[in-house]
Order: sequence, then structure tokens, then C-alpha cells
Amino acid sequence: MRTFKLLLAYDGTDFAGWQVQPDAPTIQGTLQLCIGRITGENVLPQGSGRTDAGVHARGQVASVMLQSPIPPENLGKALNDVLPPAIRVLRVEQVPNDFHARKSAQAKTYQYRIFRSDVVSPFGARYVWHYPYPLDEAAMAEAADAFCGEHDFTSFAAVDPERGKPEPASGGGKGNVRGNLRTVLESSWRRDGDELIYRVRGRGFLHHMVRNLVGTFILVGKGTLRREDLMRILAARSRSAAGATAPASGLCLQDVEY
Amino acid sequence: MRTFKLLLAYDGTDFAGWQVQPDAPTIQGTLQLCIGRITGENVLPQGSGRTDAGVHARGQVASVMLQSPIPPENLGKALNDVLPPAIRVLRVEQVPNDFHARKSAQAKTYQYRIFRSDVVSPFGARYVWHYPYPLDEAAMAEAADAFCGEHDFTSFAAVDPERGKPEPASGGGKGNVRGNLRTVLESSWRRDGDELIYRVRGRGFLHHMVRNLVGTFILVGKGTLRREDLMRILAARSRSAAGATAPASGLCLQDVEY
Repeated sequence: MRTFKLLLAYDGTDFAGWQVQPDAPTIQGTLQLCIGRITGENVLPQGSGRTDAGVHARGQVASVMLQSPIPPENLGKALNDVLPPAIRVLRVEQVPNDFHARKSAQAKTYQYRIFRSDVVSPFGARYVWHYPYPLDEAAMAEAADAFCGEHDFTSFAAVDPERGKPEPASGGGKGNVRGNLRTVLESSWRRDGDELIYRVRGRGFLHHMVRNLVGTFILVGKGTLRREDLMRILAARSRSAAGATAPASGLCLQDVEY
Repeated sequence: MRTFKLLLAYDGTDFAGWQVQPDAPTIQGTLQLCIGRITGENVLPQGSGRTDAGVHARGQVASVMLQSPIPPENLGKALNDVLPPAIRVLRVEQVPNDFHARKSAQAKTYQYRIFRSDVVSPFGARYVWHYPYPLDEAAMAEAADAFCGEHDFTSFAAVDPERGKPEPASGGGKGNVRGNLRTVLESSWRRDGDELIYRVRGRGFLHHMVRNLVGTFILVGKGTLRREDLMRILAARSRSAAGATAPASGLCLQDVEY
């Protein structure tokens, strides 16, 4: 058996998320099917973490163990021949057998794009959240690092009973995930043309956490919350204390570090 | 009655082209439906010309006559509220009643994008033709203007009996369209990063003409044809003399001049 590490990019718009489901197209399920077509082996690739329906990736990582003697580069080319254009394999490498895309991950970076002008190009609409209403962007930028450090992010975790559970060991099998405690390493807002972009790097994230952070920063932009309120929301450990969940379309998994 | 000129952008991937059809989603049909929802008037907007299934537009122009007293700017905003994100109204203006998007057009510009590297980003795949094989791009650039001027473009016209007919007066009600005679004003190839881009401006185009020109330039890039062969292909007035039709995804209607 050999273990392969796959670097993936995908447009999540037309998929029901990463995680395989019986009756819906998923990234993981599509990969499984295509790996089977190439190698004859029915194996489920493991991702660094789930992405939700409509969420994109520029640097998702998956690992898979195969018996096939196929060279890594050939596996990548063969996969791109059979995968739909919305999923691309950017790189394949053979890694030690103890590598696991989720358990070995040290940090992840997400980006969230908000389109601020009146008309979103039809060529970019799938990749942004259109929010053309007034926002105090300076206040958002100033509050951006309020969540840096280790905190209990229960207020920003999905409440859905099935999917709201913390990911078993997302972003760290190294003992840095305890309940809803997570460590944010970097958090910033910046303007880029018509877009207001949030970038967050952390050791792991709860389900919906980035989209809930964005929805809460929007309340800072609207003047409803100030930076000091964010600490109070964290301390409340209650989903209802924070802002709404921002739409999936703006979110992209940029990078996973090992 | 007042006449409105609509400037439109669309991602044509999920539409069966511009022209309204009974059982398929089209740009024209979707616009008609949305105009009806806003004004209560059932009118078919006229485009500067048809675009095929999968072909995009950054500057399509449509005209429509309405009884509604709605201000142009409000019509644009209301349309963007009800249209799918894949179709956007970039501008609406009231124009004299003798304006007609197709008959009044003086020139059109199309762009065709060929992606030359190994892996197309999932975020750009809908808008390019992936052609990673060797091409003599300098020969293509050098041959680009061979079609400039007025020529009989029968060799580059669609042969489909229904749709292959020349557009009635595409790009000129000014008497410059006679049979398959068309005037190309500019024609060039350029490199932009991973992309090889064809730009063609002309008074009017036959159905499939730009895609057939691109397919023929590919034969120049492969060394099968030389610049002087292009004149012979024009003179043959036979579709079989020219290259294959390039895929729809790479084509975009950039601009219509009046």
C-alpha cells in the first residue's frame, strides 16, 4: 500500500459539499468514483476537513491509500482526464503511510470574499457574497484580530445537531482541539478593488465557524457591535449571541499546512 | 411606447444560447420573462445577434419597446433583482424609437480564449478552450490579419441547414451584408499569461464564423496550413475547406458598436 497526498481545487457551486452522500454529487464521492475508474480500487479519499455545499477550494488536501503501482504524476493526469472541470488535481505526491490529510494538518487558511459594488459580474457571482450596503470597513479591519488566540468558539459553531458537532480532530491530531476550543493564528480584512476580503488562518475550525465570524464582523461594519462586544460574544458560548451565517458562495479553503 | 437599450453580460454555460426556445433556458427567454414580471408586458427583447449555447457575453446589447413609464435606471435595478446571477444588466438607457439592437449595429467585437497550460483552474474552466498541445503561436499571430477586409466567408459559415443561414442583417442594416459577404475590421492573436487570445472586430459575422476562424487558425498553429492557404480556403467557398469549429466555451461577445 502507498499513500498519496492530493492537492485539489474546486468550484463547489454545483456540489453538495465535500462529504460523500448517497444521492447528491459531492467532491469526495466524485473523487472516489474517479479513483475507482483509474485504479479499480474502491477507496474513500480523506479530506483535510469538510467543506459545505457551495464552498470552494484552491488548496484542499486529500489523502488516499492505494495498492496500484501508478506513479503519482500519472495519477494526477489520469484524474484530471476523468474528473469534471469543476474539480482539478493540482499536484499528487507519494507520502509516508502515516500521513492523513485531516489528522496531520497543522493549520488551514480560509478566504471570504464580499462584493461591495452594485453589479456582480456573471463570471464572478459564484465566488462572492454580494453585499452592496453601507459598512464601516475600517471598524471591521480594526476588529479583525479580536479572535486571535485560543478561544472557546461555541458562539460561532453550527447549531445543527447532526452537523454542528465539532469535527473530530480538524486541523490537529496534536491535542490542540478540546471541545469547541480553537486557535486562530491570523485574522484580517482588506479591500481589493470591488471586494472586501477576510482571511483567517487557524489550527482548526468548527463547522460554519468562518461564515459565522464573517456574519458577526458584518454587525461590526453596520455599527451594531464594537470590537469589545466580540469578547462578550465569545464568553457567552451561545450561537444566538453572534451574527448570522454568511452565504457559502464567498468562502474558499485556500491552504492547508502540514 | 419607449425604446430601451440594455447592455448585458452573461455566463452562457447553462443556457441554450440567446434565442428563445420553447423547452430550454435561453438568455432571450429569461429576459422576456423577467421584463414581464416587472412591467406586466409580454415582449421579446431583440439582441444584436444570437449567441450559441455556451457562448458568453460581456457586452451584448438588446432593445425592447415598453409602454411602462419605468425610468431606465429602475428597470435595470429591477431586472438585476429578478434575473439569475448568470445574467446581469450593466446599463439601461432610453433611445430613439428607431433604434434596433440588431439592425442598428455597426460593428461587433468577439474574443476567443484558449488556455495553453496543463491544468485549467475550476474557476476559469467555463470561459476557455483547453488546448495544451504544441502550437506555433507566432505563425498564428502573423496570419491573424489575413481575413481583414470584405470577403465571402462561406467556408466559415455553419452548414446546419436551419441555423446555418446567414443572420438576416447581423451587424448592419446599412446594406453591407450581401449573402455570405462580411467585413472583418480587425483580427489579432496575443498571449496573456496562460492564455492565447483571439480578438476579432467586424461589421457582422456568419453563424459559427468566429469559432470556425479559430479552428482554422489552429491548423496554422499546427503547421498544417500557412497564411497563404487561408486565401485559398476563402476562395473555395466550402465549409469542408476550413478547420473544425472551436468549442463554444472560449467565445465571448465583448462589444457592439452603434
